[in-house]
Amino acid sequence: MNNKPLILITNDDGVDAKGIKELTECLREVGDLVVLAPDGPRSGMSSAITSSVPLTYTLVKEEKGLTVYKSNGTPVDCVKLALNEVLDRKPDLLVSGINHGGNYAICVNYSGTMGATAEGCIVGIPSIGVSLLNHRPDADFTECCRLGRMLARQVLKKGLPHGTYLNLNVPNIPNVKGTKVCRQADGRWINEFFRSENATGQPVFWLTGTFENSKPIHPDNDTLALDSGYASLVPCKIDVTDYEFLAELNSWFDA
Amino acid sequence: MNNKPLILITNDDGVDAKGIKELTECLREVGDLVVLAPDGPRSGMSSAITSSVPLTYTLVKEEKGLTVYKSNGTPVDCVKLALNEVLDRKPDLLVSGINHGGNYAICVNYSGTMGATAEGCIVGIPSIGVSLLNHRPDADFTECCRLGRMLARQVLKKGLPHGTYLNLNVPNIPNVKGTKVCRQADGRWINEFFRSENATGQPVFWLTGTFENSKPIHPDNDTLALDSGYASLVPCKIDVTDYEFLAELNSWFDA
Repeated sequence: MNNKPLILITNDDGVDAKGIKELTECLREVGDLVVLAPDGPRSGMSSAITSSVPLTYTLVKEEKGLTVYKSNGTPVDCVKLALNEVLDRKPDLLVSGINHGGNYAICVNYSGTMGATAEGCIVGIPSIGVSLLNHRPDADFTECCRLGRMLARQVLKKGLPHGTYLNLNVPNIPNVKGTKVCRQADGRWINEFFRSENATGQPVFWLTGTFENSKPIHPDNDTLALDSGYASLVPCKIDVTDYEFLAELNSWFDA
Repeated sequence: MNNKPLILITNDDGVDAKGIKELTECLREVGDLVVLAPDGPRSGMSSAITSSVPLTYTLVKEEKGLTVYKSNGTPVDCVKLALNEVLDRKPDLLVSGINHGGNYAICVNYSGTMGATAEGCIVGIPSIGVSLLNHRPDADFTECCRLGRMLARQVLKKGLPHGTYLNLNVPNIPNVKGTKVCRQADGRWINEFFRSENATGQPVFWLTGTFENSKPIHPDNDTLALDSGYASLVPCKIDVTDYEFLAELNSWFDA
């Protein structure tokens, strides 16, 4: 009988990214690990799912306490494949990441890392997304691993409410001051395209942009915490219903 | 001076789908329309964005009060292109759809139709997603158009709160009883893959599944309203912070 927790790991940068490899190494002492991650980059895939082409997964390696698979699917597809086809029991924890680049504020909406995290939550697994504010392939994940592992242990011990998952972002500095529990900053991206042209002179548009923290009126928002040298931790909900607006919207339909 | 409202229309089934064409026809009397939609199906794309390849858009047709473009991007890319590159002013309304197939309950999380709707909301446009519970290419959108147009007029008149967008789903019946304001049902998909094989005998997996309305303890959930012959209208929030869990999560980090 194996009493070690079972941890499912995935990401959106692909199975060969440094972030998922370092995350895997640092979680080996916490539980038995199954990695099922995309076979290449899937950044910005949000909660996209694949229904137009068939999905596959293949074994990459198998060691004591660690099995690694890769798939042609999205991050969410990877979670679905792991749960439906690969694992013989529900994992005790899902960790998605470590993402190369931040997923604070509205980025939670576009991120494949956070899409996979939400998917774990939807199927009832306590789930954490972990991101480092550094896009470089050779980023230093030391602090991020330390804080992510601490959080993984806490979630394994305490659990999470039904329908709630966690979004951890870590600033790209050597000595992070600690973890601050935050709300999602209210902001958006502006100036979103770099205009260029293709070989025949037609205009083409590359997605880029600048994040604008539009109204930082709440001092507990995640963007400000990161700017101050703290890791930000936002508890996120699957249920997006705006309960505060229900009554007024109902009044639109009174006879 | 043109005082007609400017309405941006997109979808995830592609610019040639019957749903977006019928939506466009029925909204012509409401405002000036700009359609910028994917050049083919993008179902299940959620809020995915494209940064690995350049985006393009091309004019499909231009008539009095209606301009139609198509793009190689996702539904969210289409909204971003329209706002950043095509339109000279912010639209008064965004309508995404009409989707061929329902986007109730947790489908709001995976749907490209609803990804585009959320994107409109993020950039400050009152935004509505409209879906019919019929996947067929030749579905009858009559009732759905009637209810969608009524809602579009109401939103143009009354606006929506900052950070809130609307998810309208319409049952596939001739006489819908009316529109019920609802909360998002708490459910998930199960048995998600059809197992098959490719030409070399390797296993492949096609995404499918059955929706399970796990705990219909709230009689005002969208799935039950649709089952009862009503259209469901859920107000949705961009901010996914779980405010109820903030205090307890904070207690994890007390020294």
